[in-house]
Amino acid sequence: MKQQIEFILEVDKLKNVIRRNYLVDDSRRENTAEHSWHSILTALVLFEYAENKAQLDLLRIVKMIAIHDLVEIEAGDTFMFDTAGNKDKFNRENQAAKRLFTKLPYDQGKEYYELWLEFEKEETHDSIFAASVDKIMPVLLNTYSTGISWREAEVTSEMVFETLVGIKKGPRKIQDLLKDLVKLAEEKEILS
Amino acid sequence: MKQQIEFILEVDKLKNVIRRNYLVDDSRRENTAEHSWHSILTALVLFEYAENKAQLDLLRIVKMIAIHDLVEIEAGDTFMFDTAGNKDKFNRENQAAKRLFTKLPYDQGKEYYELWLEFEKEETHDSIFAASVDKIMPVLLNTYSTGISWREAEVTSEMVFETLVGIKKGPRKIQDLLKDLVKLAEEKEILS
Repeated sequence: MKQQIEFILEVDKLKNVIRRNYLVDDSRRENTAEHSWHSILTALVLFEYAENKAQLDLLRIVKMIAIHDLVEIEAGDTFMFDTAGNKDKFNRENQAAKRLFTKLPYDQGKEYYELWLEFEKEETHDSIFAASVDKIMPVLLNTYSTGISWREAEVTSEMVFETLVGIKKGPRKIQDLLKDLVKLAEEKEILS
Repeated sequence: MKQQIEFILEVDKLKNVIRRNYLVDDSRRENTAEHSWHSILTALVLFEYAENKAQLDLLRIVKMIAIHDLVEIEAGDTFMFDTAGNKDKFNRENQAAKRLFTKLPYDQGKEYYELWLEFEKEETHDSIFAASVDKIMPVLLNTYSTGISWREAEVTSEMVFETLVGIKKGPRKIQDLLKDLVKLAEEKEILS
């Protein structure tokens, strides 16, 4: 258990990793730990919209969301629209994942590393659902706040659809939600 | 889905509910959203220490932890050692739970309200495990930081054991962890 407690204390640092997007009330940028909780809750609330529930394991989905951003403790948050940063993102995060998850007992560390990798690849049913929810979160928060992080980076609707192309593999209802949010963000002139 | 999206936006406010305890690095007090994530991850990591795994449902446990603090958006965080505040805590939070969860579609709101109530009562296997993890978190963070929130309230070891008496129903390994943490906190003179 000693290794596990050290891991639990180590990941406290995720609370100090700051993302680009702001909270809905615009008061400050969001940190990655609270984003992870919000994504988990959203996965629970919206799970009914998965079209292939028989092939999905909601507990595995929650695990993926709970751990997938831990690599940011070492690799930092990479802004969705940072083209250069996203080029070497996988390699930076993969190294961080290996270092972080080997702090756990072997079997558990292996399970978490494999879940992290599965989430990143977005090829399985569970990871496609998990990634769809994770990616819709900053769109929700930008659209329903004044969208500071999008406006300061001059993000366009095309950039959102191109960057979030993975959502097209996810539930139809989340694809529709994305379209509705982009439309609303255009009306609010948050997106160019 | 409209009701659910409004709920997801409403609970963003949990990121601005501030708890007493500090982060491990002492940099600031923790907010309840990031605490909820940290508790979920800890429940996943320490699940192997449950003695009655066949009677437990880890997904239900995660759901309970993800939603049980939402009532603090309206009722605020009640410090563990605030005797007066804890007297009417259940009634204040119960009203908040009813108001909050009725914002969801009926079946989902009912499920979440019942999970909230189950967690609060700590009578079922799932809720006893969930509450043990949730309650050990501030002990971990106080003991491994400089314990500002305990020192400023002059918390004693007796107060910790009396207040966290519910952990006695939980896994033996978490009971042992609590004893080890209190001993370490005494050595560090964080607890009086």
